[in-house]
Amino acid sequence: MNIVTLTTDFGSQDPFGAILKGVIAGRAPTARVIDVTHGVPPHDVLAGALILRQTVPYFPPRTIHLVVVDPGVGSERRALCVETQRALLVGPDNGVLSLAAPSIETRRIIHVTEERFFLSPRSATFHGRDVFAPVAAALAANTPPDRLGAEVPEMNRLQIPRVTREPNALRGQVIYVDHFGNLVTNVSDTELASLASSSPRIAIGTARMQGVSPSYAAVERGKPLAVLNSWGLVEIAVREGSARDRLGVGVGEPILIEA
Amino acid sequence: MNIVTLTTDFGSQDPFGAILKGVIAGRAPTARVIDVTHGVPPHDVLAGALILRQTVPYFPPRTIHLVVVDPGVGSERRALCVETQRALLVGPDNGVLSLAAPSIETRRIIHVTEERFFLSPRSATFHGRDVFAPVAAALAANTPPDRLGAEVPEMNRLQIPRVTREPNALRGQVIYVDHFGNLVTNVSDTELASLASSSPRIAIGTARMQGVSPSYAAVERGKPLAVLNSWGLVEIAVREGSARDRLGVGVGEPILIEA
Amino acid sequence: MNIVTLTTDFGSQDPFGAILKGVIAGRAPTARVIDVTHGVPPHDVLAGALILRQTVPYFPPRTIHLVVVDPGVGSERRALCVETQRALLVGPDNGVLSLAAPSIETRRIIHVTEERFFLSPRSATFHGRDVFAPVAAALAANTPPDRLGAEVPEMNRLQIPRVTREPNALRGQVIYVDHFGNLVTNVSDTELASLASSSPRIAIGTARMQGVSPSYAAVERGKPLAVLNSWGLVEIAVREGSARDRLGVGVGEPILIEA
Repeated sequence: MNIVTLTTDFGSQDPFGAILKGVIAGRAPTARVIDVTHGVPPHDVLAGALILRQTVPYFPPRTIHLVVVDPGVGSERRALCVETQRALLVGPDNGVLSLAAPSIETRRIIHVTEERFFLSPRSATFHGRDVFAPVAAALAANTPPDRLGAEVPEMNRLQIPRVTREPNALRGQVIYVDHFGNLVTNVSDTELASLASSSPRIAIGTARMQGVSPSYAAVERGKPLAVLNSWGLVEIAVREGSARDRLGVGVGEPILIEA
Repeated sequence: MNIVTLTTDFGSQDPFGAILKGVIAGRAPTARVIDVTHGVPPHDVLAGALILRQTVPYFPPRTIHLVVVDPGVGSERRALCVETQRALLVGPDNGVLSLAAPSIETRRIIHVTEERFFLSPRSATFHGRDVFAPVAAALAANTPPDRLGAEVPEMNRLQIPRVTREPNALRGQVIYVDHFGNLVTNVSDTELASLASSSPRIAIGTARMQGVSPSYAAVERGKPLAVLNSWGLVEIAVREGSARDRLGVGVGEPILIEA
Repeated sequence: MNIVTLTTDFGSQDPFGAILKGVIAGRAPTARVIDVTHGVPPHDVLAGALILRQTVPYFPPRTIHLVVVDPGVGSERRALCVETQRALLVGPDNGVLSLAAPSIETRRIIHVTEERFFLSPRSATFHGRDVFAPVAAALAANTPPDRLGAEVPEMNRLQIPRVTREPNALRGQVIYVDHFGNLVTNVSDTELASLASSSPRIAIGTARMQGVSPSYAAVERGKPLAVLNSWGLVEIAVREGSARDRLGVGVGEPILIEA
C-alpha cells in the first residue's frame, strides 16, 4: 500500500484539502492519505519547506509527499516531482520541496508536463486539485516518475539563514515558531557543541539564560529556557507557556550564544 | 470499499468528529472515513451547503457524504438520506444538503425514521453521533436507502442569491469567504461571458479593477484582482494577501461588473 | 485491523501529529489511525482527560488510545499503558488517562520502560514521537502490554470537582467549554433527577433560567438555556450562539440549581 501525505496552507475551513483526497481516492483507490498539516501560514513557502523536512524522515521509505504552498499558481512556475533516497516529493518549484531534498540525497528532478495526468479542464487557481493531486495519485498507482515529464538539472532552493561563528559566540536567529509558541532557531546541536562551553550565556529579545536545559520541565512554570529540541536545534521555550507571547518576538529574531 | 465523508461545524478542539468515526468504525469496519471539514462556521447552513456542493463532484461515485450543521437538533426537523446521480447524502432537512442535490440530479429523498439504525438512548443534542453517523454507517454497510424510512417528495432548499442582469452590467454579491480571505461571488463564468466585454470594470467595496486576471500571480504582491476561481465563479483576491482584510468586507457585499 | 486514536495538544499547524502517524505507519503498517483531536488547549491535562473519557465508549473494543498532553516531557514522570475493560490507553502518568480508566474498570497499569520499543536516539522534548507512538505501534502490532514493562498498582488520578448537595439545591461548576461556547458543568443527569423538581431555577453568571430545555431549539435564537447534553451533564448554551461569549464565563464558573 502506498502512502501519500498532504502539506498545504489551505487551512481547516474549506473543502480544498478534502478535494485533493477525493481526486486521489478516485485515481489510486488503495493509497492511504495522511495529512501532515493544512496549517502552513498562507503563502509561507519557508515554513512549508521546514515542516516537510522534519516530516519525511519519520515516514516509511517511498512515501509520496504532496506539498501545496503555491502563491505562484497559474503563473509559469514549474510543477515538480523530486525523487530522493527516501521519498517522492510533489509540488511547485518555489523552493518548498528543497529543504527535504538536499542535493546529495536527490536522485532526480522531473519537470512535470504530461497533461494526460492532469484534470481537464484545468483551473488557474487550484493546481493542487488539477495538477498536483492527480500526479501524486499517478505515483501512488505506481506510474514511474519519468513518465510525468523530463528530468531537469536543478530546482529553486531555499536557504536557511546561516549561523555566524565568532571566536567565543554564535549568532543565529529564529526560523520557525510552533503551536506552543516555542521559538526554533537555526543553531544546531553540532554548532552548539563547537562552542565548548557546558553552560553558555544565551540572549534573545529581553530574555537572558545560562545553559541549555535538559527538558522543558527543568525550570519553574512560566520561566524561559533554552533546550535542544526534537529537530536537533536550539529552541527557546517557556515552561507551560508561550515564548513567542512572553518575549514578543518571532521569525527573524536574533539569538546570541556566548561561551 | 465504501467512502464516508464528514462535513460539520464541530471545530477541531472537541472529540465530536472523532466520535462519529468511532461509531462508523464499529458498525462499518471496512468503510474509509475522510474529513471534508469540521470548520464550517457554527450553525452556518449555507456555508455547509456550498462546501458540500463543491466537494461531491471530486469524490468517487456512490460516496456517502455525511453533513452535520444542525442548529435545529432535537427539534422536529427531519433527518434525510438523499440519493443523487453521483452520491448519497445524509444530514438534517435544513437545506444543507440541497445545493449538492439539484432537483434534476436527485433520484429520491428518504425521510429517515427507522430507529433500529440509531444509537439508543438518543440524546437531544448530538444527533450526529446518535442518528446521522449510524445511518451513514448503515449505508456504508450496504443497507439500501429505502430501508431507512419512506420516500418524500421534497426537502428544504436553500437559494443562492441570484445575479441581477442589467443591459451592460451584472450585480452580484459575495456568497463565501475562504481561508485565504478570498471573496467568492455568485457571478458565474457563464454570466461573466454574457457581458461580452473582454475587460469589464469591477467594483467591490473600495476596490476598482479592470478585467479578470488569468491568475493570482498576474498582479503585484498586495494588489487586488478578480479571477475566475476553481468553482467557476468570479472571486476577488489580493495577491499573497487577504481581500477580506484589505477591503473589510464579507458575505453579502455587493459587486458590480460593467461592460 | 487495529485502531489507534490520537489525542494531543499539538495544534494543527506543525507536523507533530503527522510524525506520530509516520512512526506508526512504519511499525504497524496495517493499523488504522484516527485523530480524536490535536486541539486540546496547550498543557491542559484535565481537558485532555475529559475528551478521552467521552471518546473511548464510542470506539470499538480494544481500540488503542494514544494521548500526548505532556507538559512534563523529559522529566521523571512515567510513561504508562493502561488496560481497561474497553480499551488500551497510552500516555504520560499525569492524570490524562485517569478519567477514562476508573479503578473499577482498570485491569492493569503497566509502567512502560522497555527501551527497545522506543525510537533511538530519544529526544527530551518529543516523547510523543520517540516513546508513545512507538509503544502504540507495538500494541497495534499485537505486542502484549506486559512486554512493555512491569505492572504498577496505581497511576496519578485527576478528580473532577464534586457537586455540593444542599437540601433543595445543587452547587456545581463549569468543567469544560466546547467549540460552540457551550458550558459543560459537573452536574450529572442523576444528580439533577435527585432534586425532584420538574422545573428547577438555574443561575450561572448573570443568566437565570427556569427548567431544563428538551433541546437547543426550544428557546428563541440568542437566548440562553440549560440542557442535558450528550455526555449526560447539565450544559448551559445559547441557541445558535456562544454561552461563553454571552455570559463571559469559563471553566470554574459556579452554577446553582434550586428546586
